[in-house]
Amino acid sequence: MEQVIELIDKKQFKELRNYLSTLHPFDISEIMEELNSKHSLLVFRLLSKDMAIEVFSHMEPAYQAKFSELIAEEELREIVNELNFDDKIDYLEEIPAVLVKKILKNTPESERKLINQFFNYPEYSAGSIMTIEFIDFKKQMTVKDSIARIRKIGYDKETIYTCYVTDRFRKLEGIISLKDLILADEYAKIEDVMQSDFISVTTTTDQETVATTFRDYDLLALPVVDSENRLVGIITVDDVIDVMEEEVTEDFHLMAGMQANEESYLDTSVKDLVKKRFPWLAILMISAAFTRAIMEGYDSLLSSVILLSANIPMLMGTSGNAGSQASTLMVRSIAVGDVVFKDIFKVLWKELRVSISIGIGLAILNFISLIFFSHYPLDISLIVSVTLIATITVAKLIGSSLPILAKKIGLDPAIMANPMISTILDALVLITYFSICSMALGI
Amino acid sequence: MEQVIELIDKKQFKELRNYLSTLHPFDISEIMEELNSKHSLLVFRLLSKDMAIEVFSHMEPAYQAKFSELIAEEELREIVNELNFDDKIDYLEEIPAVLVKKILKNTPESERKLINQFFNYPEYSAGSIMTIEFIDFKKQMTVKDSIARIRKIGYDKETIYTCYVTDRFRKLEGIISLKDLILADEYAKIEDVMQSDFISVTTTTDQETVATTFRDYDLLALPVVDSENRLVGIITVDDVIDVMEEEVTEDFHLMAGMQANEESYLDTSVKDLVKKRFPWLAILMISAAFTRAIMEGYDSLLSSVILLSANIPMLMGTSGNAGSQASTLMVRSIAVGDVVFKDIFKVLWKELRVSISIGIGLAILNFISLIFFSHYPLDISLIVSVTLIATITVAKLIGSSLPILAKKIGLDPAIMANPMISTILDALVLITYFSICSMALGI
Repeated sequence: MEQVIELIDKKQFKELRNYLSTLHPFDISEIMEELNSKHSLLVFRLLSKDMAIEVFSHMEPAYQAKFSELIAEEELREIVNELNFDDKIDYLEEIPAVLVKKILKNTPESERKLINQFFNYPEYSAGSIMTIEFIDFKKQMTVKDSIARIRKIGYDKETIYTCYVTDRFRKLEGIISLKDLILADEYAKIEDVMQSDFISVTTTTDQETVATTFRDYDLLALPVVDSENRLVGIITVDDVIDVMEEEVTEDFHLMAGMQANEESYLDTSVKDLVKKRFPWLAILMISAAFTRAIMEGYDSLLSSVILLSANIPMLMGTSGNAGSQASTLMVRSIAVGDVVFKDIFKVLWKELRVSISIGIGLAILNFISLIFFSHYPLDISLIVSVTLIATITVAKLIGSSLPILAKKIGLDPAIMANPMISTILDALVLITYFSICSMALGI
Repeated sequence: MEQVIELIDKKQFKELRNYLSTLHPFDISEIMEELNSKHSLLVFRLLSKDMAIEVFSHMEPAYQAKFSELIAEEELREIVNELNFDDKIDYLEEIPAVLVKKILKNTPESERKLINQFFNYPEYSAGSIMTIEFIDFKKQMTVKDSIARIRKIGYDKETIYTCYVTDRFRKLEGIISLKDLILADEYAKIEDVMQSDFISVTTTTDQETVATTFRDYDLLALPVVDSENRLVGIITVDDVIDVMEEEVTEDFHLMAGMQANEESYLDTSVKDLVKKRFPWLAILMISAAFTRAIMEGYDSLLSSVILLSANIPMLMGTSGNAGSQASTLMVRSIAVGDVVFKDIFKVLWKELRVSISIGIGLAILNFISLIFFSHYPLDISLIVSVTLIATITVAKLIGSSLPILAKKIGLDPAIMANPMISTILDALVLITYFSICSMALGI
């Protein structure tokens, strides 16, 4: 980074060009995003054409859109034409419609149709992340012919390590890895060495399922077929890694009560950050009216025994923490496929035992601390400790079951994790606490 | 699953064998984990030897250990010997030391030394996840020779798609992908087609860095070198996907106040779940003594104006939520490499603007709701609303900066996310609230 700026300042463009040629395209894209527009354009101009395309495809989507405004339409069109198909689609989805139109002006009708088809795949579906640059064979070919075909058309394919065997209606008949091709006899027929039991997904398969499939079966690529089993694209492992990160980020954001944000933090405007965070905070704040109403309902109790209200933050905090332990564990277990709906009773039974053990442990600790350190009267110490056991149990049972139920009805389990739950729990904690107080103290 | 049980019950072992041969080893391992020991062993015996090894390597580590007790030592030794080196190490680390000793009884001294070396790599380091089954060339070889070498030794290598060029001291000089080999001229020299600017890590590199490197550079494999730049192993993308999941799970667990758990939920005993969750809950509960003390300190204020205490849950909840939005966003941004230490002032400035906007918005909403719906007096409505702006700002600034500082001093940023922070925030909220109350109401 410093070196690039130094070379620009000294106008040593030849040295800069040489230095850039030793870097990975990802690193160049990172450097460009840090530079001002003028310098960034300068760096870009010093790259070879192939490298420029690589660098462009490594840029963050938001920066791609920004950078597009710096270069001439003609040049932009040339770069976009050379992008891998999936990168091209991602880019076209990011920029304004008017620019899309300009870029696609001279694109042949057939490709424009294909691009439109990709635009229409549902967001987060296999169709929306696949690419069309794969290698296909016919099953009558020999291994030798196949390798010759790879040599001929392999250069700009997304992967050559998994190849696909299709019939004349483009139906997928088998897959074969380059490893198997290399290790097989040159004159063997493809149909004898290909795998006919293969895993595929359809264009509408959810991207999270795609990611799980890659992980479970240790795949490098996965074929995508349409409803008639015709091969329409492939997904490669590098794109799946990006999907995994997106999904995880989405879960994190949902669990912290934010709308998911795909842009990087530093690139997101204050306005957008506010928009993503405000709605949940407002909803949660207004829901807290319940806790207020409950406390006001018990005002005679609270004003007669002031020690009671002093324990409310601890009770709410501990139950909230206990609940979010359970819900977080469940969200994650569902995401990695460890827990499915039919396990719900096993989970509840396990959580019941866990929460009673933890509840009793904490109650004892709390009782000792109230009696010996805070010198509370016996009755209030007992009430607080018993409440603790009850609310921890409720918190764990609700926290663990809601994500499973959410998944069952097609919601994202992460929504059922943090803040909304803790607001509900807060109300439950107060009701439980005050009920026990009223009963025990007779107020 | 049902089909397997049915075939076992009907004793149709030939059909079962045929059926199993159509399944992926991962699916068979999943089925076996669901079956009882007897049936699971039966299924295992019906597999071909190669398949049995594949299935064994796909089992969850805990199940591998359990399953090892079902089969004879001799058979186990045979299976373990055939495992890929990284799988073998993972397995040996999972089982009791006495079994390790038995299994390695007849292992040659050289391999035993190697295994011990792997045991000594720090946990979560590149050394602990790498494998030694790679393909190496010398730079004088031709492309044709190299492909012949792959054919000869490629069968049981972890990958043949990236190959490594070493000198006679095993120093890494270059890497070459099978794609480049296939597309290159047969008689070209390896040194002319290999990449000399390559990315490598050392045995002690943290696995999280390894994962980021794979993602940023779209890699399929990464060479691991020792301190003298000698090639000692490689890491492949399928293992990195597992690492990514582990790291994410760890973050989730830490942020929910649990010790990280690597086993699947259903396989973890109640006792272990309690052990992972109890310590944090206890620490947090005891820290809540602060909030109790603060509230007791202001008991005259609280008993004279009961409406004040009714707003405490809302204030704590909203600030806690605002803080965890900021801390979660930061933990995730740090994990994916979007935010580094030098961005801290940019982050604080951004969060300051975000929190003031959100604070004012929520304060207005809250003021309206208190005055018009809850018919609160003007002074208390104002106090609560002003407190909201102050505590949201504090929450966002603390929530966003602590994870960055944690990373800087070598802690996991996730520790600085959820529950501990909200306990600290609870105390700050109370102090802020009561100070404003005392000033405004003169009590």
